[in-house]
Amino acid sequence: MRKIIVQKFGGTSVADTEKIKNVAKIVIKEKENGNDVVVVVSAMGHTTDYLVKMAKDLTPNPSEREMDMLLSTGEGVSIALLAMAIQAQGYDAVSYNAMQIGIMTENKHSKARIVDIKTDKLRQNLKEGKIIVIAGFQGVTEDGEITTLGRGGSDTSAVALAAALNAERCDIYTDVEGVYTTDPRVVPNASKLKEISYEEMLELAHAGANVLHPRSVETAKLNNVPLRVRSSFKINNLGTLILGVDKMELNNPVAGVAQDLSQARIVVCDVPDKPGVAAKLFSKLANENISVDMIIQSYARKVSNTNDIAFTVDKTDVAKTVSALNLLKEEIGATGQIEVDENISKVSIVGAGMIDRPGVASLMFETLAQQNVNIRMISTSEIKISCLVDKDQSLKAVKALHEAFHLDSNEIADVKGDLPNL
Amino acid sequence: MRKIIVQKFGGTSVADTEKIKNVAKIVIKEKENGNDVVVVVSAMGHTTDYLVKMAKDLTPNPSEREMDMLLSTGEGVSIALLAMAIQAQGYDAVSYNAMQIGIMTENKHSKARIVDIKTDKLRQNLKEGKIIVIAGFQGVTEDGEITTLGRGGSDTSAVALAAALNAERCDIYTDVEGVYTTDPRVVPNASKLKEISYEEMLELAHAGANVLHPRSVETAKLNNVPLRVRSSFKINNLGTLILGVDKMELNNPVAGVAQDLSQARIVVCDVPDKPGVAAKLFSKLANENISVDMIIQSYARKVSNTNDIAFTVDKTDVAKTVSALNLLKEEIGATGQIEVDENISKVSIVGAGMIDRPGVASLMFETLAQQNVNIRMISTSEIKISCLVDKDQSLKAVKALHEAFHLDSNEIADVKGDLPNL
Repeated sequence: MRKIIVQKFGGTSVADTEKIKNVAKIVIKEKENGNDVVVVVSAMGHTTDYLVKMAKDLTPNPSEREMDMLLSTGEGVSIALLAMAIQAQGYDAVSYNAMQIGIMTENKHSKARIVDIKTDKLRQNLKEGKIIVIAGFQGVTEDGEITTLGRGGSDTSAVALAAALNAERCDIYTDVEGVYTTDPRVVPNASKLKEISYEEMLELAHAGANVLHPRSVETAKLNNVPLRVRSSFKINNLGTLILGVDKMELNNPVAGVAQDLSQARIVVCDVPDKPGVAAKLFSKLANENISVDMIIQSYARKVSNTNDIAFTVDKTDVAKTVSALNLLKEEIGATGQIEVDENISKVSIVGAGMIDRPGVASLMFETLAQQNVNIRMISTSEIKISCLVDKDQSLKAVKALHEAFHLDSNEIADVKGDLPNL
Repeated sequence: MRKIIVQKFGGTSVADTEKIKNVAKIVIKEKENGNDVVVVVSAMGHTTDYLVKMAKDLTPNPSEREMDMLLSTGEGVSIALLAMAIQAQGYDAVSYNAMQIGIMTENKHSKARIVDIKTDKLRQNLKEGKIIVIAGFQGVTEDGEITTLGRGGSDTSAVALAAALNAERCDIYTDVEGVYTTDPRVVPNASKLKEISYEEMLELAHAGANVLHPRSVETAKLNNVPLRVRSSFKINNLGTLILGVDKMELNNPVAGVAQDLSQARIVVCDVPDKPGVAAKLFSKLANENISVDMIIQSYARKVSNTNDIAFTVDKTDVAKTVSALNLLKEEIGATGQIEVDENISKVSIVGAGMIDRPGVASLMFETLAQQNVNIRMISTSEIKISCLVDKDQSLKAVKALHEAFHLDSNEIADVKGDLPNL
């Protein structure tokens, strides 16, 4: 049986007709490799901005239903043009929007989740030798309402289609060449990873690496669909393969280092040390739709029987958080100040291989100590260690960690033997 | 029961967000009149040209299926924006594309005909007090393929929706103020008709008046839907009502005068006067997809037993016609030349009231004679008389006929008593 490859091209890859011709070549090359090809595309370059601008000309608060109707036209244009470009090269191609396929979503405008994808028509078309071009980012409800999937929606469409079609792989073509050990704009000798696990990718994504939206990685993980992140403009470069830990050739102790400058640290001082206080505090924030990231509660002071609760939130949520806390202070009996520090950075190392290697954490702390970087908070997950540091020490910390874990080699997977004894 | 009014706005009426706001006002005004309102819109201004240009960048011959996919996005934009503009004024509105409604067409890309329109969803929405905004020009096949309706498609969508919903009226908003007795750009004192019959409108359309596409008028006639042609920019002007002859307040002997400069006259000389020759000739042209308009066969000459066959075709078909005739000449035994004259004009008078008034034809011929206009061919239908004249005499002919039939009054319907004794 022929293998199915799902390819996804974002807005910059189809920004004009010349770029669409380039995409057609990549698609045809995969078809010529002997695979069945299903292509998912986003709207062309700045189409979405243009449509949003017109909507805002009409009303400051357009309805989400009509915004979905409006925005979904963007992919209608790019799929038809890409199908034409493929046909112009003598290949059979057909384009479909989400409604025609049956990319079924929940009934929630502007950020719907896919619940089902009909594949009959797709399988029939593939059997007929057709290349199928599908509109990403959009879906349809049972009632025939057009929905959109929110940020990273086209990636999610592609991964969900790959899962529904039991595809061999989902290739995400983008304007970067793959997933790096750290942001190459920050650390120029960052190296491209050959492989990374879903879990590591998720931690890196949450830690501030913007290659893929976490939702699409989660969907891939859930359905065990191998993802490849690669460049639309350097097609001989294989990019980075994202797959299950069990299928990885090698487990690097540390796959990458990330910094996240978007968080602020909040400390509620002198909170009574009694049950239910933390619950009250964080459920209040949850009700206000404020996402809390790292949380640390200090040991209770014996004299006053109080402690401090520190946590981080997104900088854009600081004002909302402080006013919620001020309302709550009396109720929970907090007597101290509420401190806000926006000059912080969360520096994380991520790696599926650190699970059985306690030496990873100590090497991280030692490295930061050698650089005189003060650690303000620490949090850990199975495959990630994050340290909150002062913002102006963040870059120094990232560079030192990148070097300490030997991430600046050309091919991480090949240098495992050279890693320090962890 | 509340009455349903279908309104149609063309591309120039929704060319930018300011114009869309204006359209929203017109829609709301009709709603405030106590009617249920269904609005059909075309793509914004130059959207279609822009989309076609991108397609042509990719391939000189884009597939019709993908062109339909591409072009149908244009109305997706305008319906969503118009719905937002209506909502911004505090009214409930909802937009639908053809697939969501079920505007079912035959499976023929780029010029499909509507075969059925589902109305359940529409009636439910109207019952809920919603203003419905629908994409014109597009349809969907039973297999879920997106089709477009070809030239004048949005007018046809609007009329077909009015018929399906048993609407009180279909208002076609455009950039002209109504249907005139003749082209006001040619004869400045042309007057706007208050009423005109479907049949007259069809003859005027075919005779070169470009207000409505004949297909939409035919659909209106078939379903007895009253049409009103009116201006988007002067909404207090009621425009022209197009309806059945039986429902007209008054039958004017002559409703209008039209000139058509797009035809060429072809004469096949010295054709044998025997049965089957004309049939052979015109079936040959039909096979070549050449539309023939006026046809005249001269009386046979006794001496040679031959005659001349003259007819008119569209100027763009002249080359194709001549080469078809040259291939045919020998077969039918025509010995004379093939003459082509492109310096001609077809001048027509149209009026449902001329049926029982033979004086109308004679007044036309007398008027042209007084102006020294030579009549080259004549053809008549029940409600139209057309004369082929030299192109440089056309304007003089139109003006003289316009005056002779007293069409330059302010309200034609009011001056019936002043018409010459026909």
